[in-house]
Amino acid sequence: MRGAVMYGPGDVRVEERAEPRVVAPTDAILRLSATCICGSDLWPWRGVDDYGWPAPMGHEYAGIVEEVGDEVGTIRPGQFVVGSFFASDNTCELCRAGYQSSCVNRVGVGAQGTQAEYARIPLADGTLVATPEPPPDELVPSLVAASDVLGTGWFGAVAAEAGPAKNVAVVGDGAVGLLAVLAARHLGAERIIAMSRHEPRQRLALEFGATDIVEERGDDGVARVKDLTDGLGAHSVVEAVGTQESMMQAIRSTRPGGHVGFVGVLHDVELPGEELFYSHVHVHGGPAPVRRFLSELIDLIWSRAIDPGKVFDLELPLDEAAEGYRAMDERRAIKVLLRTDS
Amino acid sequence: MRGAVMYGPGDVRVEERAEPRVVAPTDAILRLSATCICGSDLWPWRGVDDYGWPAPMGHEYAGIVEEVGDEVGTIRPGQFVVGSFFASDNTCELCRAGYQSSCVNRVGVGAQGTQAEYARIPLADGTLVATPEPPPDELVPSLVAASDVLGTGWFGAVAAEAGPAKNVAVVGDGAVGLLAVLAARHLGAERIIAMSRHEPRQRLALEFGATDIVEERGDDGVARVKDLTDGLGAHSVVEAVGTQESMMQAIRSTRPGGHVGFVGVLHDVELPGEELFYSHVHVHGGPAPVRRFLSELIDLIWSRAIDPGKVFDLELPLDEAAEGYRAMDERRAIKVLLRTDS
Repeated sequence: MRGAVMYGPGDVRVEERAEPRVVAPTDAILRLSATCICGSDLWPWRGVDDYGWPAPMGHEYAGIVEEVGDEVGTIRPGQFVVGSFFASDNTCELCRAGYQSSCVNRVGVGAQGTQAEYARIPLADGTLVATPEPPPDELVPSLVAASDVLGTGWFGAVAAEAGPAKNVAVVGDGAVGLLAVLAARHLGAERIIAMSRHEPRQRLALEFGATDIVEERGDDGVARVKDLTDGLGAHSVVEAVGTQESMMQAIRSTRPGGHVGFVGVLHDVELPGEELFYSHVHVHGGPAPVRRFLSELIDLIWSRAIDPGKVFDLELPLDEAAEGYRAMDERRAIKVLLRTDS
Repeated sequence: MRGAVMYGPGDVRVEERAEPRVVAPTDAILRLSATCICGSDLWPWRGVDDYGWPAPMGHEYAGIVEEVGDEVGTIRPGQFVVGSFFASDNTCELCRAGYQSSCVNRVGVGAQGTQAEYARIPLADGTLVATPEPPPDELVPSLVAASDVLGTGWFGAVAAEAGPAKNVAVVGDGAVGLLAVLAARHLGAERIIAMSRHEPRQRLALEFGATDIVEERGDDGVARVKDLTDGLGAHSVVEAVGTQESMMQAIRSTRPGGHVGFVGVLHDVELPGEELFYSHVHVHGGPAPVRRFLSELIDLIWSRAIDPGKVFDLELPLDEAAEGYRAMDERRAIKVLLRTDS
């Protein structure tokens, strides 16, 4: 099969890879309808993370079940399914508490690379959620989005306790930040401030439900958020970047007693304890437990209540994955969908 | 009047100070029945914090109202009252959200020093809570404790979301940590692990409701907490020390999805972002909004449901404040009550 492999920073090649097979009796093999490139894939592309080269790439996926292991009970060949980037048993105490991405038996899906035609998904019954029937083509991008970027933005908004009568600020205008805006809107937030200086992203933020755009960053951005929130800061702030600057901007934009939901993978970030102490904010985040939200998100997509697939503003055949990485790295694209069936 | 003044690290003197008078029309003047020494008073005593010398000391207090300003409506001379170390209007949006220690009009009481015979308390109506009648002498220590150390331990337990069916670990066996144990018990926690290696403190922890004692610290302490919590870590961990080591011990003792309530004033602490991200814990804390809990705490003390005054294991006349600081610094005493009426 064809699959994307990174050979080092800035070097992604789509090449022939071994087709995955059932290894454990709880595995499922999927024929992927589409896959995509994640903001977090840019960390190794930029040389910030070293995955050990060559590394198969990709951890977002949705597709048709081709085959299942002997112990798989609820997932059946022929179903269209969506899963998270962490496979989880969905039965352990941490899964039951809603933290499937910390499942005691979790398996990272990314190690195998889902920027490919096929993927082996471990713990299929706990990980995968089937759609009512195979989806029409126009829903596929939204369903792929549910596997990470939508689920991550959603978790950010939930971790920030976005909801009715709350004002929400979102730091980061990548696909996760934009979908955190969509999540905050769906969760009933009253005012949603998108922090973005890029016109196409601002437009999408407004379309997803943002009520205000703040272009300033750092201290100026914090001051603008306070201006818009009675001088106190937002009740809920989603951090969707992962740098020292963005995390401090998020904490400082939050009112005392408010909540920061952070879903940008933190890189070289140190939170100053004394400032955190006197800030009085709540801080919660981490790798999104997408599985917690997946059934609900699929329902919302299926009923056309939300259209998260709009974050894909560039669609390429899988073979052109490298161009997709470049487009995202250079911010020419918000998010790239890779079609495996073209 | 007599009052304690710090002239520099290790140098506390009780000397004649000007008696406070009503300055603002919202002030109350209290004749203090008792006051005490806080763990946080040891930071300047040890030279870690520089308050600018000489500095009047103390921020915990309870006593009889002597006089009130013209705009004070609910507090009346003759009442016995307890207040927090932050005066607050108790009407602003942050107060109404339960964060009175971040009140937009807050005033630190400590700057005036309550280790004295009298104190001026700003924003009296918002800050002070009266007991049903002047208390019997044996309740005074518990009522003084409510003004900070009990309220702070309580906030730690609430911020850690201690409650029924939860297991709770408490890092720190000072008075705040011990009272966080008491709070966790009152909030209905199932298992309460006190981390302490000092026999008298272990005994008090057990008396306050601890079910387990862990003597180990650092990684060994974390491992012991995991042993006691199905290998996952505690649902709720209270951090009541404020150092890098204790804060990391708290985070690492918490299960994914669990809550760290941190109430030790953080000094030179940096939280590593990546570890926090993958830990999946919630982090919340800061200066305790004691006023949020004060009416309830007074009721519990008044009805003898709790006896937080037990943390005072040394009682001295105000004039011997310096000996009190030494006893706490050398861990000969858990907490020192200073009697102003002796």
